[in-house]
Amino acid sequence: MQNVGFVLPQEPEMTDFLPVKNDTFLKALRREPTDYTPVWLMRQAGRYLPEYRATRAKAGSFIHLCTNPQAACEVTLQPLARYPLDAAILFSDILTVPDAMGLGLYFEEGEGPKFQRPIATEKEVQALCVPHMQESLGYVFAAVSTIRQALGGQVPLIGFSGSPWTLVCYMIEGGGSKDFRKIKTMMYKRPDLMHQILEVTTQAVIEYLQAQIQAGAQAVMVFDSWGGILAHQAFQVFSLQYMQRIVQSLPKQVVRKTQAGSHADSFSEQIPSIVFTKGGGLWLDALAATGASAVGVDWTVDLGRARTQIGQQCAIQGNLDPNVLFAKPAHIQAEVAMALQSFGAPSAGSGHVFNLGHGISQFTPPESVSVMVDAVHEYSSRQRMVPT
Amino acid sequence: MQNVGFVLPQEPEMTDFLPVKNDTFLKALRREPTDYTPVWLMRQAGRYLPEYRATRAKAGSFIHLCTNPQAACEVTLQPLARYPLDAAILFSDILTVPDAMGLGLYFEEGEGPKFQRPIATEKEVQALCVPHMQESLGYVFAAVSTIRQALGGQVPLIGFSGSPWTLVCYMIEGGGSKDFRKIKTMMYKRPDLMHQILEVTTQAVIEYLQAQIQAGAQAVMVFDSWGGILAHQAFQVFSLQYMQRIVQSLPKQVVRKTQAGSHADSFSEQIPSIVFTKGGGLWLDALAATGASAVGVDWTVDLGRARTQIGQQCAIQGNLDPNVLFAKPAHIQAEVAMALQSFGAPSAGSGHVFNLGHGISQFTPPESVSVMVDAVHEYSSRQRMVPT
Repeated sequence: MQNVGFVLPQEPEMTDFLPVKNDTFLKALRREPTDYTPVWLMRQAGRYLPEYRATRAKAGSFIHLCTNPQAACEVTLQPLARYPLDAAILFSDILTVPDAMGLGLYFEEGEGPKFQRPIATEKEVQALCVPHMQESLGYVFAAVSTIRQALGGQVPLIGFSGSPWTLVCYMIEGGGSKDFRKIKTMMYKRPDLMHQILEVTTQAVIEYLQAQIQAGAQAVMVFDSWGGILAHQAFQVFSLQYMQRIVQSLPKQVVRKTQAGSHADSFSEQIPSIVFTKGGGLWLDALAATGASAVGVDWTVDLGRARTQIGQQCAIQGNLDPNVLFAKPAHIQAEVAMALQSFGAPSAGSGHVFNLGHGISQFTPPESVSVMVDAVHEYSSRQRMVPT
Repeated sequence: MQNVGFVLPQEPEMTDFLPVKNDTFLKALRREPTDYTPVWLMRQAGRYLPEYRATRAKAGSFIHLCTNPQAACEVTLQPLARYPLDAAILFSDILTVPDAMGLGLYFEEGEGPKFQRPIATEKEVQALCVPHMQESLGYVFAAVSTIRQALGGQVPLIGFSGSPWTLVCYMIEGGGSKDFRKIKTMMYKRPDLMHQILEVTTQAVIEYLQAQIQAGAQAVMVFDSWGGILAHQAFQVFSLQYMQRIVQSLPKQVVRKTQAGSHADSFSEQIPSIVFTKGGGLWLDALAATGASAVGVDWTVDLGRARTQIGQQCAIQGNLDPNVLFAKPAHIQAEVAMALQSFGAPSAGSGHVFNLGHGISQFTPPESVSVMVDAVHEYSSRQRMVPT
């Protein structure tokens, strides 16, 4: 992807930021008491919103939205103007890193992302290297800083990356896949090559997330969208260990300069991390052991069971089926209540961030999101008033 | 689908059958000691075999293979001629029942199955009824009897059906789906209608499997291919309870007439059942509690953990990633050994049937299956020699 006519900001660490006002999301990730359960939605800035479709039409393409920091900022803020969400998430594509590695990301109307030059030979594996972050991905970090400034401390900004395994799935398959035959053939036939690609990609993801944090991200999330296609043993070896390395390589705390005129020169921020393996419900123990602040879970997971299993080790994020948002308001409220009941009343040492179990569908009625977000806030506030 | 010029056999219960010679598969399902771990493969009669492709080309289409008992018998036996498999499985399509309910099954080259008349309105739901088994599905029962006769007792014959939830997914989506939006919208919006369709379909599946058993099937399997897309709670309500009803409605034992000249007039056969929810690894307890003889598991499940969880309640079937068959022979052998080690040494009250975690890929080299089957037999025989 090419930058679309914007000037990179000065050194990101020089940017002045405001501390966050609504820190419910960050508190939940730190497993500190909160007044209610914070909520945000995966893909909350997206096609289900008419204002998103308008901005996208104006920008001309999805790629233009991603590469233009002002446009990325605009769409990132759209859902926050509509709903009292407790976090913003950087608007970007999951495949920016392999694109920066030279694979040539492109989109065909109505289809998922694809690569012009997928990895097919050993020579191509050997040629892979970690891209220069500012040169090739500066537009992402510029978007992070722009959004953080525009948020003005309203809610925290989440940065993100695909997991190495998930990125490599796309890099080898060249796009989405039904059976992941190419990557699995390489994995089972040439595990050495597979690890070589994963090593380079992991290093790139670490630098990518570090730069996002430096640019202003207040939390980071690693999306392991395709970890769930792996066999039990293979998941540990080909996905989990690399996510663990990422989590452990990121700064846990950063110092930010304050805006001119503030009463102090700087303030420090903890940077929590979230790992999310779609279809990874069987591996929650292992995911919690990565050291991440939270584990994301999809709707196949019972939140109560997940909490019993890992609740004291890290926070849990999830997990409504996005299709619940096609139901009537009363049913959406009932499903929200059921999820919150299943997690149970808050207690010391546990934390829950409400979310969907996967990205919101483009066909979702925007009113449904309103119903859901309000239900989360109201029901979880009441939960905290009841003596347990 | 239309029957393609064949005569229905006499009353199935009059057909003379031989008792089975190699009963390793049935013993494992009953959790009795076996000399080795029995093995068969989901979709073992299929496109990866050149002889299958030849028969299919001769038949003209997949539908002709399914509806012609002689052709269905021929392809069912093909993998048994190549490999020392421990069970045969009826060659048929998963969607014969909704087709018999009038939805109009068809196939387009290179795509999955589709329905001409998917269920879209409440009126269409009300109009659904259980089809007359012999009239509309007689070709399936004729295939079962023909195959059982042709097997001559070599190995047991497995009959099968899709689970009600899985059939209804196709009936409402009209084919495969990425997001299952139609069926989930109906499920969350009109659970009453959803249960109505599931009721009719469940009754049809019960009669369908009963007739297969009567026609000679020695075990039955329920494929819940799409149960794994459901949320934790929804799985119990919309898939599991209907599978449980099926398992509990099937005869556990049948009496067969013997062939003329045998020393006894009849013999009795126990009919074990297997339930398999793809992506259902989180719900093994619940699946085991259906009363099925075995629970099938996909490759995301650790066999050792599954055995600890449910091993004394029922047998376990699975679970190699079909993509392992793209690896080199030594690696296939290592993966087989790892799976058998993970399950652990046999012990009283536990049973394991080796299988893939999903249907075999059409691109599989046939030699790989040989390597896998031999490795299962050899390694598991050795496992039984080592004192534990």
